[in-house]
Amino acid sequence: MTTASPLSERAAMLRALELAATPGVPLAPNPRVGCVLIDTEGAVVAEGHHRGAGTPHAEVDALTRAGERARGATAVVTLEPCNHTGRTGPCAQALLAAGVARVVYAQADPNPAAAGGAATLRAAGIEVEGGLLAEESAALNRAWTFAVTHGRPFVTWKFAASLDGRSAAADGTSRWITSAAARRDTHRLRSLSDVMLVGTGTVLADDPRLTVRDADDRPLPVAEQPLRAVMGLRDIPPSSRVLDDAAPSLLLRTRDPREALEQLHAREHRHVFLEGGPRLAAAFVAAGLVDEIVAYVAPVLLGAGPAAVADLGITGIAEALRPEVVDIAVLDPDVRFTLRPAAPGSPLTAPSAGGN
Amino acid sequence: MTTASPLSERAAMLRALELAATPGVPLAPNPRVGCVLIDTEGAVVAEGHHRGAGTPHAEVDALTRAGERARGATAVVTLEPCNHTGRTGPCAQALLAAGVARVVYAQADPNPAAAGGAATLRAAGIEVEGGLLAEESAALNRAWTFAVTHGRPFVTWKFAASLDGRSAAADGTSRWITSAAARRDTHRLRSLSDVMLVGTGTVLADDPRLTVRDADDRPLPVAEQPLRAVMGLRDIPPSSRVLDDAAPSLLLRTRDPREALEQLHAREHRHVFLEGGPRLAAAFVAAGLVDEIVAYVAPVLLGAGPAAVADLGITGIAEALRPEVVDIAVLDPDVRFTLRPAAPGSPLTAPSAGGN
Repeated sequence: MTTASPLSERAAMLRALELAATPGVPLAPNPRVGCVLIDTEGAVVAEGHHRGAGTPHAEVDALTRAGERARGATAVVTLEPCNHTGRTGPCAQALLAAGVARVVYAQADPNPAAAGGAATLRAAGIEVEGGLLAEESAALNRAWTFAVTHGRPFVTWKFAASLDGRSAAADGTSRWITSAAARRDTHRLRSLSDVMLVGTGTVLADDPRLTVRDADDRPLPVAEQPLRAVMGLRDIPPSSRVLDDAAPSLLLRTRDPREALEQLHAREHRHVFLEGGPRLAAAFVAAGLVDEIVAYVAPVLLGAGPAAVADLGITGIAEALRPEVVDIAVLDPDVRFTLRPAAPGSPLTAPSAGGN
Repeated sequence: MTTASPLSERAAMLRALELAATPGVPLAPNPRVGCVLIDTEGAVVAEGHHRGAGTPHAEVDALTRAGERARGATAVVTLEPCNHTGRTGPCAQALLAAGVARVVYAQADPNPAAAGGAATLRAAGIEVEGGLLAEESAALNRAWTFAVTHGRPFVTWKFAASLDGRSAAADGTSRWITSAAARRDTHRLRSLSDVMLVGTGTVLADDPRLTVRDADDRPLPVAEQPLRAVMGLRDIPPSSRVLDDAAPSLLLRTRDPREALEQLHAREHRHVFLEGGPRLAAAFVAAGLVDEIVAYVAPVLLGAGPAAVADLGITGIAEALRPEVVDIAVLDPDVRFTLRPAAPGSPLTAPSAGGN
């Protein structure tokens, strides 16, 4: 037998996925990738993973640790080895130079600029197999996969509402409608995105901090904060908290959702967390640019106050938005709904007249 | 040993609870009660249960089946034997006449008119023990227990809303916001109540049938239908569907929630299911007369349309209603919240400023 058993390769891929998901590795601009080198007996020769833009790719990380022991090994990697020279050299060449005998990868590289690594390796006589646990790898880099496939960041629209759909009481007070558990969960989701986006109107009205804070309400270090992006044509005061030094900030001088996303994509942002206000969210929905809705519903009744969701141009029940329910979670005592369009990248349209 | 073991009595009580909950036995106006007679070895001598107003009480049902074998037996019954002569004779006397040696009951009779059975039995030299699985028995007759304790029917307010708190689209269309599973669940809950209450405004606007229908949308037999009560001072046309012969109907010529409940209580109704409209529900909330909220939230967005919950007189977040969450259930894909005030019979007030 010149290569390890399929079972060993599967075990190595599970380990590579684990390495890819190492806590602290940023979710953007690069995908999270893990790599395990195994010998013909299935024993681990070396492990590696990517640690963020500008650092070695997972394959190179593992090859460096393996040194001469890489010769004849099988490289098990969660993403098709890249073929391009970006901030670091192409991984396909590095694997060839190290004398690796076989390459097993999970997800094919959806990035047109980087794809072709498998073909390059095969042309050089290396045994290459793709697709092992591909879905698990894609799930690990959902926003990144979406962004490189669709040419724009993945957009999550988050809102919180009382059981009767209000975002505040009649006098505008809103602290707090949702539970502490739901608010902690929001910070967790913020930390998994790389841009938090609001409109100038929300900044002028609420002066939000838009930072990610821990369970004790302390902001995370600046380096771990997502970008705070403000879109719109109205001027916001320089003293706005969204412009403080707690996190990076960016002003997007446009009212067009598509243009805002283009600007963010050009800066290699992959995942936009859309937090406010309701009219900005409605503009994204109308443009077909909401890829996920995270809605926290608190078992609280207000009876009056601003609506959490603005006019979406819907007049009849047949036009109601009925996204797919991906998940329903209870966050003592609130409920979090996670909804997505039927197909990634498609608008949140009404799937069938009259609904289910 | 002159009586059965505690374990045998517990087993008999569980069986008595099962008998009490026999499907088809009405939940009003009487409580559901089960009775098991066991001998000193713990063997079942006879079983019985109540089948609705005008039929024998559970004890008498079991005693009739036992005949002479009741002598020296232990009667295990889910509710304290009654002491009064209502439509049927008092059970305490029947147990004495049958020569029962011991009586074990679960729930003490909360009905002042019927209570005292345990004392009567003890005075006659019978061994009496109360409280075994008392909570289970009370849960079986929750609305009845509430009604005889508080002197008015238990009120469940049910509403359904989109994720953004709407009960219909902008043009008034609303079929359907909720899922088929949620609508079936509503019919199940209707069938567990004994009055469905709406305002004259809802009848004039929507002309609802207000019947309980099965999974195939066919109405249950008239005898199994809850009363359809309409309250308000406006006249409704005789052709209104709520007045048809599919179920009994009652017009309550008052706008006062308390007076409406008094009228229903006088007719021995125990559980009112409040279905519409929002202003009627708000009046019950304001009067402190809502004992349970069942809210179906559908993962549907409308962005406009009538609010599912009317103005409750709340201006600031500190006054928000935050009832206790009793249950959260997923009814593919809707979510059902069941909420109750912190203490039975108390209003749905704000428990603490600022919430949790």
